[in-house]
Amino acid sequence: MKNRRLCVLGSTGSIGVNALSVAEHLGMSVHAISAHNNHQLLVEQTLRYNVKRVVVTNEDHYQTVKQALAGHAVEVFAGHKHLDDIAADDDVDTVLTAIVGAIGLQSTLAACRAGKRICIANKEPLVIAGRLVMETAQKHNAQVIPVDSEHSAIWQCIEQHKNHEIRDIYLTGSGGPLRGRTDLTDIKKEDALQHPNWSMGDKITIDSATLMNKGLELIEAHHLFNMSSDHIKVIIHPESIIHSMVAYKDGSVIAQLGLPDMRTPIQYALTWPEHKNGLVETPNFIELGSLNFEDVNHDLFPSIQLARQSLELGDFGPCALNAANEIAVDQYLKDQIAFQDIFKCIESTLPLVTQNHNASIQDIINFDTEMRQRLQS
Amino acid sequence: MKNRRLCVLGSTGSIGVNALSVAEHLGMSVHAISAHNNHQLLVEQTLRYNVKRVVVTNEDHYQTVKQALAGHAVEVFAGHKHLDDIAADDDVDTVLTAIVGAIGLQSTLAACRAGKRICIANKEPLVIAGRLVMETAQKHNAQVIPVDSEHSAIWQCIEQHKNHEIRDIYLTGSGGPLRGRTDLTDIKKEDALQHPNWSMGDKITIDSATLMNKGLELIEAHHLFNMSSDHIKVIIHPESIIHSMVAYKDGSVIAQLGLPDMRTPIQYALTWPEHKNGLVETPNFIELGSLNFEDVNHDLFPSIQLARQSLELGDFGPCALNAANEIAVDQYLKDQIAFQDIFKCIESTLPLVTQNHNASIQDIINFDTEMRQRLQS
Repeated sequence: MKNRRLCVLGSTGSIGVNALSVAEHLGMSVHAISAHNNHQLLVEQTLRYNVKRVVVTNEDHYQTVKQALAGHAVEVFAGHKHLDDIAADDDVDTVLTAIVGAIGLQSTLAACRAGKRICIANKEPLVIAGRLVMETAQKHNAQVIPVDSEHSAIWQCIEQHKNHEIRDIYLTGSGGPLRGRTDLTDIKKEDALQHPNWSMGDKITIDSATLMNKGLELIEAHHLFNMSSDHIKVIIHPESIIHSMVAYKDGSVIAQLGLPDMRTPIQYALTWPEHKNGLVETPNFIELGSLNFEDVNHDLFPSIQLARQSLELGDFGPCALNAANEIAVDQYLKDQIAFQDIFKCIESTLPLVTQNHNASIQDIINFDTEMRQRLQS
Repeated sequence: MKNRRLCVLGSTGSIGVNALSVAEHLGMSVHAISAHNNHQLLVEQTLRYNVKRVVVTNEDHYQTVKQALAGHAVEVFAGHKHLDDIAADDDVDTVLTAIVGAIGLQSTLAACRAGKRICIANKEPLVIAGRLVMETAQKHNAQVIPVDSEHSAIWQCIEQHKNHEIRDIYLTGSGGPLRGRTDLTDIKKEDALQHPNWSMGDKITIDSATLMNKGLELIEAHHLFNMSSDHIKVIIHPESIIHSMVAYKDGSVIAQLGLPDMRTPIQYALTWPEHKNGLVETPNFIELGSLNFEDVNHDLFPSIQLARQSLELGDFGPCALNAANEIAVDQYLKDQIAFQDIFKCIESTLPLVTQNHNASIQDIINFDTEMRQRLQS
């Protein structure tokens, strides 16, 4: 493996911080990083990892960052448009996208067009424009390698195997903070925000409570692995040790397991196809004692079915699902709606979508903007 | 994948019968088969699968088979020496070795020297002469692909990965008929012969009760995957769904799972590197509910430790272990010794072994013969 030069988009979030520590462990040089608000950590990271180019997407912090880095051999840029530059930089061969939200789409595409290895942790580009991202990557010989633990697992379970050898993909999920509930009326925010295994942001934890995280992951898996959604099954596995499984047509199932620690999938995305010495222990199977499985209660948690429906609607379906979910979760977190209203919001949004299987990036961005305006009002 | 032409050594045993049904399912032609005693089934198989060359190793049955096949375009041979001919036959590219016992060593080596794909279900050649089998295969570009469910699992979990990427191999075992026992005095033969998950012969079921099957598999895994025995861990998994696991150095663990049905590993050995449509269902994880793990009680069941010790003794160690075990199990099945005497017999045999790391095949065969004579008397 050649020594990779890394660009981390969104370096101050949880994935970004882990990515930089893994890169340091691997002795990989970090050429460029970006952050939005956490300018203090951005400056610290720049100095610690000897970064050459820095983008602060929130322009309000530009002067602070610029001044803090004065006298160092670092170029500092302000604003989202510069993400595309560092993602396509000739001095970079690997781009880890850890931005949250659809705002990461353009830079993901820029990295695709520049033929980079893209270690993709930014869900939204795949959710709202998965077909276009994968087509662009293929056209420019870019590698799209998943960082999400479930998709990294599937990636590892497939390795050199071909799509036509696969019977089903089993996407596992912990079941989230509300696993086992039989009634979702009056779910308190503090209960919905208590994730048993993973420590994540509020939006993602609510997605885990509604199981919409699995719905979004199903959409991502559909695009990443070119797999029809009816061959992607979701299964509840409370311990979060089996990160996903692939069942082959001969009855053989390959699973990837590990402690719930994002450094493992981050590192494999960086070092693929090689497993290098890492920072994470092997699970102690004897101490674990057992790994459990449960079915999803689709009646109570309709998110996965909604995600399947959205895929049937073509290019705009998942974009509408994602927009409606983001807005509803935001409203729930602001105590404006009840927990179950998140599902209702999405259910009432999907019928607004018209079938389209040939949308351009601009079509999707326009649709996303219009849909959000419509939903907000 | 080219259409493989198969030779099945030991076609009338459980593995052989399954191998022929898998070959038929795959549309693979069966050029040659062999059997020892079950001449009736041998004849049936010859006609059903349109086999061209047949070896009956028990010469007493030669005339019966010859007569039954008179008028058909089949060559019939008698005696073990002809196994080497059909294993090295130019019209064969894949040899599945399902003979039981050390008697399969010569034909396994013949297939290696002829550069065949060897789907190896015959344990003893790897146990008593693993180093030599693997060296011979490598020298002649033969592929040695395991059929045993555990080793097929490890093979599948490794695929294109390199030995140096592996942290540990986890060989799983059901725990056998005596799992959970805390006292092995007065173990009745009928209890030791009750295997919970797999239906196998008496010798192998007793090996499963003593956990010597895991000891022998550890030796096989050491040779097949060129892995130091202290990086091969044995773990009890009562459901026999996870067939084995490989832990990589980055904390990632790959497991192979499936129903306990030998047709899956047989088929994968034949079709590797491709998973083709097979006859076996995917496990129903929801119905299973949980997969459990327990530690081995090494004090009560010293077989795995004895296998490790035997490997430290070099080329003759596993051969002595295997001979002592075979003789002791035979005596136990004949009610001549108690269950725990099986361990005692092996424990008292290993100190008789002198270190040797450069034995020839003939040295090993001579050692095996002498050791058996010594143990019988």
